[in-house]
Amino acid sequence: MKTIRVSIIGFGAVGQGVARVLIDKKEYLEKLGLDFRVVAVADSRTATINENGVDLSAVLVRKQSEGVVGSEKLTGLEIIETIDHDLIVETTPTNIVTGGVGLQNMLAAFKHGRDVVTSNKGPLAMKYGELIEVAKAGGSRFRFEATVGGAMPVLNLANDVLAGNTITNVEGIFNGTCNYILTRMMEEHAPYEQMLAEAQELGYAETDPTYDVEGIDTACKLVILANCVFGMNATHEDVTITGITKITPEALLLAQNEGYVIKLIGEVNDSRINVAPKLVPIDHPLAVGGSLNVASVQTDLSGPITVTGRGAGSIETASAILSDMISIYRD
Amino acid sequence: MKTIRVSIIGFGAVGQGVARVLIDKKEYLEKLGLDFRVVAVADSRTATINENGVDLSAVLVRKQSEGVVGSEKLTGLEIIETIDHDLIVETTPTNIVTGGVGLQNMLAAFKHGRDVVTSNKGPLAMKYGELIEVAKAGGSRFRFEATVGGAMPVLNLANDVLAGNTITNVEGIFNGTCNYILTRMMEEHAPYEQMLAEAQELGYAETDPTYDVEGIDTACKLVILANCVFGMNATHEDVTITGITKITPEALLLAQNEGYVIKLIGEVNDSRINVAPKLVPIDHPLAVGGSLNVASVQTDLSGPITVTGRGAGSIETASAILSDMISIYRD
Repeated sequence: MKTIRVSIIGFGAVGQGVARVLIDKKEYLEKLGLDFRVVAVADSRTATINENGVDLSAVLVRKQSEGVVGSEKLTGLEIIETIDHDLIVETTPTNIVTGGVGLQNMLAAFKHGRDVVTSNKGPLAMKYGELIEVAKAGGSRFRFEATVGGAMPVLNLANDVLAGNTITNVEGIFNGTCNYILTRMMEEHAPYEQMLAEAQELGYAETDPTYDVEGIDTACKLVILANCVFGMNATHEDVTITGITKITPEALLLAQNEGYVIKLIGEVNDSRINVAPKLVPIDHPLAVGGSLNVASVQTDLSGPITVTGRGAGSIETASAILSDMISIYRD
Repeated sequence: MKTIRVSIIGFGAVGQGVARVLIDKKEYLEKLGLDFRVVAVADSRTATINENGVDLSAVLVRKQSEGVVGSEKLTGLEIIETIDHDLIVETTPTNIVTGGVGLQNMLAAFKHGRDVVTSNKGPLAMKYGELIEVAKAGGSRFRFEATVGGAMPVLNLANDVLAGNTITNVEGIFNGTCNYILTRMMEEHAPYEQMLAEAQELGYAETDPTYDVEGIDTACKLVILANCVFGMNATHEDVTITGITKITPEALLLAQNEGYVIKLIGEVNDSRINVAPKLVPIDHPLAVGGSLNVASVQTDLSGPITVTGRGAGSIETASAILSDMISIYRD
């Protein structure tokens, strides 16, 4: 049995999802020879630390009832710098302007030779090159499948499963909120504002939906794909972006009558990174409904490979984090 | 640079595809630190051997012009047993009754501690348990992504990328010939026999199409999935099979009017392995047209993950073999 000492830094929906998954999958992981021992958990205000293993069930209960994970006043950064452990699960809120606390956490982790698995897009969309360089210098492993498309495994598909292929283009739907709103606008012939309100009620959209509906979230994911799959050194300023707020039910109906749907499509290849609403034939693999995400990877040998999955959700995102954790430490 | 000494045993469409891909990807593979040196190539009648590396371009030309790969009379089995090398690419014609020469080749390879990558379904559909056991005993690596769905990467997706998930069900279209015939019958409102003839003319169907249209090919792939993903010890006798020969254009039209297509769906879970034509809603991820393959993997954490790709083709199948080769030897 290999024991990996883990900290979970950031304990919102995704961090809590990781805790739940580690509890539920304990036996499964032991069969793989892996004992992920969580020695520290931090949220934005408090921390809990136990070198023999934090009681994750108790932490989840406390977070639900008291809104905090513990009584200690250490920050995530202090944990990363002072507690002896192997892997940081970085799940703090994303910040796409500065990279935020997540960027500091990841850089500190690498400087201390620790591995990082994250769902935090901001630092990767802002400072990809620097992060990869510092990780390499420290001999750290760094994986981030959960940053693009939640449970839809596009990064590991492109880089691992399709090894041997040259990827020439990636396009897809990378934002479930936009897909939900556009799907519902078409189904109900209803205006954008009405379906946005429905999405907000159901928890598919934030109170301030700008980040999703203006295409910024999609742009961040494309930047990560551009850097990770195409070896660019892009930031979100390199992306041409049009959002979905100007789409009308009339446009959707016209499209439908011609056998098309309108989707917010992100596309990246070695000459451009673009987010815009596009017409997609209704029987095309990219024409998936609801809040699904989908990515079509164009390859030189295998032709197009398309993968569809849930782009968000606490457990779904945690599952992508868990796959990365297994992939690093499994023999 | 790591040098891996390789034999290609079987030099039909797939074996030739592997040779072409190894020529085209030489530089790409060197960047990964991999030198796949082909020291022997065998077809059913002849062989060519060179411990410093066979000239693959010359072998391809000779196969095209003379119908044979060389002048030596060694069989594939003799090469596996007597030539010092690391990896067998086993691409002999498949045999689903006895496992055929492929089964003997793989067992011999493992007894000599060599690794095997294959596209040859028969041995895996017949003797999965024995093959895995002998491979393990010899310390050999054994990968076979190309046996299920050609370039559609369902095995490595389920076992590697989705690690951490428990797979509860896999269903999909695993035979491009049937998908082509059913898609064209619907498009043209034409009978089965006519579209079979078209598929034969275009090279999508064999002169004797039984293996494809009666669902036997799909059944073999399901058996491999059952064994590899669900840990069963099934053979193709455990599969309930209905083919597509009784589907009429009238049935397809009725389905279409209700918003459905009819597809030959293979399904496997821990209680059944089944091949049968099924109604699929037209906007469902499994409703892909043409000769595409598609697999939907149901997971406990990530929900359903669907992958679509080309199920056949010499280069597409070779690309799946190459990905497996890289996956074994890449650090």
